[in-house]
Amino acid sequence: MTGYSTNMRIKLPLFCLILQFITIILFAVFVRYDHESDARGWHDELKNHSTANADNDFYFRYPSFQDVHVMIFIGFGFLMTFLKRYGFSSVAFNFLIAAFGLQWSTLIQGFFHGFHDGKIHVGIESMINADFCTGAVLISFGAVLGKTSPVQLIVMTLIEVTLFGINEYIILNIVGAKDAGGSMTIHTFGAYFGLIVSRVLYRADLDKSRQREGSVYHSDLFAMIGTIYLWMFWPSFNSAVTAHGDDQHRTVLNTYYSLAACTLATFGFSALLNGEGKLDMVHIQNAALAGGVAVGTSGEMMLTPFGAMIAGTLAGIVSVLGYKYLTPVLDSKLKIQDTCGVHNLHGMPGILGAVIGAIVALFATADIYGDGMDDVFPMIFDGSRTAKQQSLYQFLALLVALGFAIVGGTVVGFILKLPLFGTPSDAECFEDAVYWEVPGGEGHQQLTVVVNNEDPDTQA
Amino acid sequence: MTGYSTNMRIKLPLFCLILQFITIILFAVFVRYDHESDARGWHDELKNHSTANADNDFYFRYPSFQDVHVMIFIGFGFLMTFLKRYGFSSVAFNFLIAAFGLQWSTLIQGFFHGFHDGKIHVGIESMINADFCTGAVLISFGAVLGKTSPVQLIVMTLIEVTLFGINEYIILNIVGAKDAGGSMTIHTFGAYFGLIVSRVLYRADLDKSRQREGSVYHSDLFAMIGTIYLWMFWPSFNSAVTAHGDDQHRTVLNTYYSLAACTLATFGFSALLNGEGKLDMVHIQNAALAGGVAVGTSGEMMLTPFGAMIAGTLAGIVSVLGYKYLTPVLDSKLKIQDTCGVHNLHGMPGILGAVIGAIVALFATADIYGDGMDDVFPMIFDGSRTAKQQSLYQFLALLVALGFAIVGGTVVGFILKLPLFGTPSDAECFEDAVYWEVPGGEGHQQLTVVVNNEDPDTQA
Amino acid sequence: MTGYSTNMRIKLPLFCLILQFITIILFAVFVRYDHESDARGWHDELKNHSTANADNDFYFRYPSFQDVHVMIFIGFGFLMTFLKRYGFSSVAFNFLIAAFGLQWSTLIQGFFHGFHDGKIHVGIESMINADFCTGAVLISFGAVLGKTSPVQLIVMTLIEVTLFGINEYIILNIVGAKDAGGSMTIHTFGAYFGLIVSRVLYRADLDKSRQREGSVYHSDLFAMIGTIYLWMFWPSFNSAVTAHGDDQHRTVLNTYYSLAACTLATFGFSALLNGEGKLDMVHIQNAALAGGVAVGTSGEMMLTPFGAMIAGTLAGIVSVLGYKYLTPVLDSKLKIQDTCGVHNLHGMPGILGAVIGAIVALFATADIYGDGMDDVFPMIFDGSRTAKQQSLYQFLALLVALGFAIVGGTVVGFILKLPLFGTPSDAECFEDAVYWEVPGGEGHQQLTVVVNNEDPDTQA
Repeated sequence: MTGYSTNMRIKLPLFCLILQFITIILFAVFVRYDHESDARGWHDELKNHSTANADNDFYFRYPSFQDVHVMIFIGFGFLMTFLKRYGFSSVAFNFLIAAFGLQWSTLIQGFFHGFHDGKIHVGIESMINADFCTGAVLISFGAVLGKTSPVQLIVMTLIEVTLFGINEYIILNIVGAKDAGGSMTIHTFGAYFGLIVSRVLYRADLDKSRQREGSVYHSDLFAMIGTIYLWMFWPSFNSAVTAHGDDQHRTVLNTYYSLAACTLATFGFSALLNGEGKLDMVHIQNAALAGGVAVGTSGEMMLTPFGAMIAGTLAGIVSVLGYKYLTPVLDSKLKIQDTCGVHNLHGMPGILGAVIGAIVALFATADIYGDGMDDVFPMIFDGSRTAKQQSLYQFLALLVALGFAIVGGTVVGFILKLPLFGTPSDAECFEDAVYWEVPGGEGHQQLTVVVNNEDPDTQA
Repeated sequence: MTGYSTNMRIKLPLFCLILQFITIILFAVFVRYDHESDARGWHDELKNHSTANADNDFYFRYPSFQDVHVMIFIGFGFLMTFLKRYGFSSVAFNFLIAAFGLQWSTLIQGFFHGFHDGKIHVGIESMINADFCTGAVLISFGAVLGKTSPVQLIVMTLIEVTLFGINEYIILNIVGAKDAGGSMTIHTFGAYFGLIVSRVLYRADLDKSRQREGSVYHSDLFAMIGTIYLWMFWPSFNSAVTAHGDDQHRTVLNTYYSLAACTLATFGFSALLNGEGKLDMVHIQNAALAGGVAVGTSGEMMLTPFGAMIAGTLAGIVSVLGYKYLTPVLDSKLKIQDTCGVHNLHGMPGILGAVIGAIVALFATADIYGDGMDDVFPMIFDGSRTAKQQSLYQFLALLVALGFAIVGGTVVGFILKLPLFGTPSDAECFEDAVYWEVPGGEGHQQLTVVVNNEDPDTQA
Repeated sequence: MTGYSTNMRIKLPLFCLILQFITIILFAVFVRYDHESDARGWHDELKNHSTANADNDFYFRYPSFQDVHVMIFIGFGFLMTFLKRYGFSSVAFNFLIAAFGLQWSTLIQGFFHGFHDGKIHVGIESMINADFCTGAVLISFGAVLGKTSPVQLIVMTLIEVTLFGINEYIILNIVGAKDAGGSMTIHTFGAYFGLIVSRVLYRADLDKSRQREGSVYHSDLFAMIGTIYLWMFWPSFNSAVTAHGDDQHRTVLNTYYSLAACTLATFGFSALLNGEGKLDMVHIQNAALAGGVAVGTSGEMMLTPFGAMIAGTLAGIVSVLGYKYLTPVLDSKLKIQDTCGVHNLHGMPGILGAVIGAIVALFATADIYGDGMDDVFPMIFDGSRTAKQQSLYQFLALLVALGFAIVGGTVVGFILKLPLFGTPSDAECFEDAVYWEVPGGEGHQQLTVVVNNEDPDTQA
């Protein structure tokens, strides 16, 4: 049933094992424990009374890290299991991409952010940032879900992680924008990158696989596991790398309120836009999460709780409208086949989040922030920028993210077209059996048997 | 298939969006960051050396908050997915109710507990308490599961959250009872409130939907996800708002031992009461959790580990007996149709928990508690009450909770009968297709197709 | 359908309730809150200014404990739901074993490690260690999954927990080996114990049940929930009881990198060894986790990040090779029927982890560890051992674990053969309906109906 191009016997082991080998070599040369995880380093500090075990950043950030970890592996992984015959690939390729991506991003981000004396210093914060970077790749994965081979996905990860690191460095360190929850660096970048890749890989005959591009009852429930975990832990995501104290605390509050408001907006608009007043699982699974994206930049700022709610409400509305009206148009007119609708969950809400961040930055005053200004807007605090200037730089950062996504996505799209990497035929998309030993026998797997009988290959 | 009354096209958006709008206005007027999440407030304290970032309550409570959050959204949500054709509604209406409830309870609880200078101050503790309050509503939801429209559920949430806030204020601040894990304020109140609502909404012809009021193999496994998460994180629930230090530590220990003992009692009695010695998934899914409810009041007290185990064992036994013998009687004699058996999981164990709390309070001595008395029983510590008096006030609190539940549930039940809110017909209960676009096509959704063919509408 | 021997009507309640009763008595006599969870004890320390609430070990270890708790109850529980008709038993017997095991191990470990003035002092660390001990039993459960009655499992738990406690005491306190993540005490011991039990309980006619010893599509997705949670939280498992500060921090880093590398090795070798280049869900579900086992001993040591990656890569390769080539041989030649392949996930990687630990110990120098040597290798720090001696003692510990597993497993295997405990017939293995009221009606449960029609009983 599967053609030559999707046979992964040689390609997949080759890519997995060679990349792992190279990564180990690079880690051996460059990566070292940081001063908080190194036995001698930390104990020297303890001996000098310059710190105490309770001050180890591990205790401030590890719970947040684990929440982010759950979002990456369970959240993204299960959110994509909604497809009736692509559950294995969704959760397992998500696993593969993230496991490779976090190693590679440790290196790339380390070169830009954690390089000391020729070595990359790793610790709890580098782990969070590595997970964050894989988040961008998994968003792009959502756009091409079901239409790419695992080797294509590994190649995409390799390049996208690298571009993510450069883009992030420019936005945070050169432009000097704030984006702790990644509205720009993660969501906008990841979404438009994936959409452009999907555009380049446009499949005119995808209709041959459309009968598999939907859900069944229990696959929608598996997807809800992903949704709910993403929703619950988004406050940890947005606050994971903000400053200790009030910053983490406030970011959590803002994200919590934004998501709650977004959920009501999503249910309301989902029923409103359906002719019979029925709710659509696709909206609940996705649009209800847009509130987390929409406060990714502004969550650490003095957004105010009701400001967070307005952000979340707008994001939910935009996202449902996108699923209803925009996704079909992107597909038919712009030739962008966006499997998971990442444009509605990450793309538009990411831009919205960037704009909200720029607006909130505009109103930053010493009266509101006090000395907390140093944590949120250090350049306003030290007088090197006005609030208005900071706001403009926030907008500039959005343009940088969009630029990197569009150029990078185009390049990667054409690279992925190389026959070398293999790709399923138009009639083999959204089908686990192409890459997996699907269980045979009684019951469920009859589903697959039935599927194979009416497989497009046979129809073609 | 769905009659006029369940068409949610106008009603659901109207309620969601108007309530969200009102909530945003009220947040704008009343809600402010507290001194630990406000940039200026916290940094002023830091500047005065009156605190350090590590002392921010965020670090003492956020991990517990996230565990509670998982219980509310995954725990309650998936526990109710056991119904074969109501999984979408179970997990998603749970999501909707909780997302609205936590906003509304932030306001209601804020007026009673966090009001300073005309403003409600929010932070990590208000987030936990808001989640707690939604827990009571979700317990009530369990009693009416499958028989109410989402608009009815939103109206119930609106009123029940309000009554919860008043009841909690009376119990904690006026009666001066202790109830950190909510045996009375959450479980007893939520369960009897829901049972009374279910009584008022009694459906004589529910038999028309009974063929859907059961589980299928995989829906029971989805429900076990909910069960296990509730079971694991219950120690976090009971300890989330107890005092720092030994109190949180001890509450966790007590809840852990209570639940472990409860689990063995549940397996034992489940097999014992079944004619063939087989186990019943309903018992494992629910009764094994009663141990958490039974130490909701006494968990922070010097209950002792073996005391916790006795509490858990009793709760498991009472709960299994309830499912086996009491639920059918409630249905046939008292006309209380309790879909999830909340009387067995939350009602009776809640009362048991209140009684255990009163008994343990009776034995509170300075010898046992030392200065820790101030955290657990401040009125005994400062001499304004004896242990015996505290015990009596604990009993009084139980009566208050029951009173609020019964009166409140009656009022809400009659309000929910208003045709305005819509409700499924007796033949449409426990059916997702009434409110959802259920996936069509091959495989699982044939279940639904089959279902529709033999739908009561057709039979009628 | 079920014969006399599997009727649990009397046996299961008897064992559950009597053991719970005995446990409560023993707790009443022996178990007390430790100085950090006792109201008076902790407040006396606070009064003497010898500590502060933030120093309570609860805040250093509770988040890790909850992650471990999730691994034990969700991780192990759902990992074993891959069997098409044994999902109820997998997740629920896992629940029962762990709930009893954690109580019993609190007593056993308490006698060896927490005994003060004739009392067992319990707190957050005893909770973690109790959960750890149940982990070993659940590994053994994986070897006999589907072939044992719940009463047999309870008896196995009772004895195995006791032997675990003795073995652990010898390894940690007498041999003086380090094994914070339990490569030896948990994984090696649990795996070989279970394999030997399975050998003694060898079923020559298991072919009568083989048609049920496989997965269906959605059961594999349920199993992936278990896999991903184990994978994500393994850093918490290995670091849960290591020393505060750099030790917990470093153990988390090492485990994170080991698992990431293991995942790529697993995907690579899974595709490589399959004739058609397809991936095998069994490998992804299990072998990808071997990286956590492989750094269980060495995780707290100065393994270096690339060292962790090498460990993980080796473990993934060994594990996939084991599933592919060794498991069939164990079954056909050695008469070891290893349902879950625990030899590949815990056995060989456990030995690998012990060896890696011994090797890394060999290179422990004051230059690398500084004063941190006191936390990792206290006997090297205080001069009572050289690094070479420590390394030899690490190897000795592995032999002790293997010895206890083999002798203990043999004894327990023969005990479990006593007719008293009941056991399913060879034709009734891997079948929930033997112990459970399986839901009847439409849809999924037709699976069971079909199953019953072609049940071996009928064939026989």
